[in-house]
Amino acid sequence: MVSHPAVTPFQRLLFKQLRRFIGQAPIRLRLGTGSSSLSDGTGPECVVIYDNSALVGMMLDPEIGFGDAYMKGRVDIEGDLVHALEVVFRAMQGSSKRRWFNRLASYWLEHLQANTLDGSASNIHRHYDLNTDFYKLWLDPQLVYTCAYFPTPSATLEKAQLAKLDYICRKLQLQPGERVVEVGCGWGALAIYMAKHYGVTVQAYNISHEQIEYARTRASKEGLAGQVEFIEDDYRNISGDFDVFVSVGMLEHVGRENYRVLGETIHRAIGDSGRGLIHFIGRNRPEHFSTWIRKRIFPGAYTPSLREAIEIFEQREYAVLDVENLRRHYALTLEHWLNRYERSADCVIDLYGPEFFRAWKLYLAGSGASFRIGQLQLFQVAFAGSACQRIPWTRAYLYAEESQVERNLRWSHAAF
Amino acid sequence: MVSHPAVTPFQRLLFKQLRRFIGQAPIRLRLGTGSSSLSDGTGPECVVIYDNSALVGMMLDPEIGFGDAYMKGRVDIEGDLVHALEVVFRAMQGSSKRRWFNRLASYWLEHLQANTLDGSASNIHRHYDLNTDFYKLWLDPQLVYTCAYFPTPSATLEKAQLAKLDYICRKLQLQPGERVVEVGCGWGALAIYMAKHYGVTVQAYNISHEQIEYARTRASKEGLAGQVEFIEDDYRNISGDFDVFVSVGMLEHVGRENYRVLGETIHRAIGDSGRGLIHFIGRNRPEHFSTWIRKRIFPGAYTPSLREAIEIFEQREYAVLDVENLRRHYALTLEHWLNRYERSADCVIDLYGPEFFRAWKLYLAGSGASFRIGQLQLFQVAFAGSACQRIPWTRAYLYAEESQVERNLRWSHAAF
Repeated sequence: MVSHPAVTPFQRLLFKQLRRFIGQAPIRLRLGTGSSSLSDGTGPECVVIYDNSALVGMMLDPEIGFGDAYMKGRVDIEGDLVHALEVVFRAMQGSSKRRWFNRLASYWLEHLQANTLDGSASNIHRHYDLNTDFYKLWLDPQLVYTCAYFPTPSATLEKAQLAKLDYICRKLQLQPGERVVEVGCGWGALAIYMAKHYGVTVQAYNISHEQIEYARTRASKEGLAGQVEFIEDDYRNISGDFDVFVSVGMLEHVGRENYRVLGETIHRAIGDSGRGLIHFIGRNRPEHFSTWIRKRIFPGAYTPSLREAIEIFEQREYAVLDVENLRRHYALTLEHWLNRYERSADCVIDLYGPEFFRAWKLYLAGSGASFRIGQLQLFQVAFAGSACQRIPWTRAYLYAEESQVERNLRWSHAAF
Repeated sequence: MVSHPAVTPFQRLLFKQLRRFIGQAPIRLRLGTGSSSLSDGTGPECVVIYDNSALVGMMLDPEIGFGDAYMKGRVDIEGDLVHALEVVFRAMQGSSKRRWFNRLASYWLEHLQANTLDGSASNIHRHYDLNTDFYKLWLDPQLVYTCAYFPTPSATLEKAQLAKLDYICRKLQLQPGERVVEVGCGWGALAIYMAKHYGVTVQAYNISHEQIEYARTRASKEGLAGQVEFIEDDYRNISGDFDVFVSVGMLEHVGRENYRVLGETIHRAIGDSGRGLIHFIGRNRPEHFSTWIRKRIFPGAYTPSLREAIEIFEQREYAVLDVENLRRHYALTLEHWLNRYERSADCVIDLYGPEFFRAWKLYLAGSGASFRIGQLQLFQVAFAGSACQRIPWTRAYLYAEESQVERNLRWSHAAF
C-alpha cells in the first residue's frame, strides 16, 4: 500500500468524478490513509482508496475496478461491508449509464465464457471444483449451496436448509416410488433427502467432478446407492422417463440462449404428464449479470427476469402453478454464510491466499446486499405438464405440517 | 329445423371433413334427426347437426360456425355439454391449423373491437351493462363475477366467493387506513369488503354504468359511501396516490397492446413503495382468444400468457412476489354458475330470448371445459415496488386463519 502525503490535481479530479458517480449515497469516501488525504461525504461506512491504480480502475469500470481493487486490498471498506454495498448499489440502481469499458468487458466475458457443452464444463469446474473442505468451512452440515427457507427469521441455517429441502419436496408432492430427475445436484443433499424421506428414486446430474464424487460417497454411506444415482454429465444429455423434474440453483449457469434447449430437455424427461420445480436467482427486468462476479466468481452466469425464465415453459405449454419469491430468505442465508466465512478467514487464507479470501468475501457480501435491496430475486417456480393429474387444490397443505421439518431435523444430526 | 330424409353426397363429404377435423375424439356426430341420417363415432355425447348451413359454417370456421349454429339451435349436443366440449377441445388442442376464415374473423374482430378509450367503453357496455337482474339469476348473492376460491371443493359458491375476497385482502396485507385503488370493480363486492373488513379507503373504477350505479347504492346502504368511492371512468384516467393497487378480472379486457400503459398507470398510482395484485385469466402460451366468444360474448377480450402479463411489471421493476394458478377453482366456479344459469332458463329466455340463452350457456360450458383441460389458467399475481417495505416473510400466514372466512360469512347473511 502506497501512502499519499500530497494529493495531486489528477487525484482530486478522479475523486470528484467518483463521488459524482455514486451520487448522494450516504457513504464516506477517503483517498489514502494520511491526515492530508482527500475525504468527502457522510455516513456510517467509509470507502478507503489506497492508490491511484484503484482510483483509475474504478473510474474506467466501477464494477470490475472496485471488485479487483477490493480483492487486492487497494480499496477497503470501514464499517459494515454489506450495508456499505447496499448504499452504493442503491445509489447506482437508478442510473442506467454503464461505462463503455464495462460494456466491453461484459461483451468479452459473454463470448469467452459461453455455455456450450465444453464452456459449461470449464465454467462449472472453476467454481464448484474448489476443494469441498473450503465449502465445509461456511456452508451448513448438508452442504446446501442455495437459498435456504427460514420458517422464522430466527431459525438456524442448518434448520433452514432442511426446511428448504422439505419445502421443495412438498411443492413437488413427491410420492413413494416416483422417478425424479435432478439437474445441478451440488453435493447431493436434495437428491438424498428426496430418496430418504419421500421414497422416490433419483437420477441426479452434475458436471462438477468433485461434487459428484462427494455425493456418491454420501449415498453409499447412507445405504441409498441403489435409490440415488449420481451422474457426471451435462443436463442436456439426460435420458430416461421421469415423473418429476427438479433443479435448484442451476438455471443461473444455463445461459439465456439455452432456455429453449432446457425446455426441450424437461419435456424429453417428463413429457406432458410430469411436473417439476425450478429454483433460481432472478431479476425484476432483464439486465446483465455483474461483470466482476462473472470475471472472478461465476464464469458464464446469467440471472434472468421471470419473464425470460418463463420461456422454458411456454414452448411445451407447461402450466406455471406457483411462483414464490424468497429474496428475503436469500439475504438472510448470505448473512449466515458471510458470518461463518469470516470466522473461517484463517483457514481460507491458508487454502487459497488473501486475495481469494477478499474476493469471496466481497461476492458473499455483495450478493447479500443485492437481495436486501431487491436488485436480485429468488424465484421458485412449480410447473406441470398439460396432462398432469397431480395439481394441488390449494396451497394450504404446504403450511399444515411445519412439524415435519422438526421431525426431519433429527436426520441432520445422524452421522455422516 | 329442417329434416333430412335423404343424405346428399355433398353432405356426406362435409360430414367426413368434420370428423377428420376433430380426429379421434370419443364423441358421436349425427346429421339430421331421421333414421336415415348419417352418424359416426362412439362416446357418451353426440353432436347433432340439424341443417346444411350449420354443416357449411362449421367447415368454414369450426369455432364461429359451431358457436353460432349452437346459439341458433341448428346444432345441439346430447349428453353432458361441458364434457362434450372438453372432448372436442382436447382433440383440437394439438392441431395448430386454423382455418383462413377464422384467421380473417379474428383479425377483423381485433380491429373492430380495439381497446381504445371509446372502444373499451363500447366493449364493456355490451357485456356488463346487461340488466343486473340477469346476473342475479346465477351469480352468488355478492355478485362476484370472477373465479372463486374454494377452501375445499365442497364449499358453497357463496362461501367460496367470500373466501376469494378475503384471500385477496390477505395477499395484499391490507392495513386499516391504507388507500386502495381498484380498477374494474364490477358491482363493488371487493371494494366494499376491503373497506368493511380491513378498514381501508377505496377508489374503485369501472366503465360499466350499470355496475357503478349498483355499487354506489350498495355502499350507501352499507354506510360506507364515505369510505368507498365508485368512479365511472377508464383505468387509464386514475389519479391520486395510493398504497395498494388491485384488479380482479379486468386484464382480460385491457388488450395486450396496453400492458405498458397499465404498468405506467400502476406506477402513477402507487409509485415504487406500493404493492398490488392482479387476478386474470391466462394461457400457457400466447394464443388468440376464442373468436366466437369475442364475437358474441366478450368483445375485445384477450387472455395473455403469464410471460406476456409480466410485461406490466418489468418496465418499472416491480418485483413479482407470488403467482398462484387457480384454474381448478375457475372450472368449479363455472360449474356452479352453469347449474344456476340452467335452473334460471325460463327467466333468461323471458329477458333476452332463446338464442341469447343458448349463447351464454355455451360460453359458460365452454369456459368450464377450457379450465378443466388447462387451455385456460387463472393467475393471481402479487407484486411490490422496489421500495416497498411490506413483503411477507413466508406465505404461511395466508393459511393460518381459515376461520376468518367463517367469521366473514356472517356478513354475507346481513341484509342487502
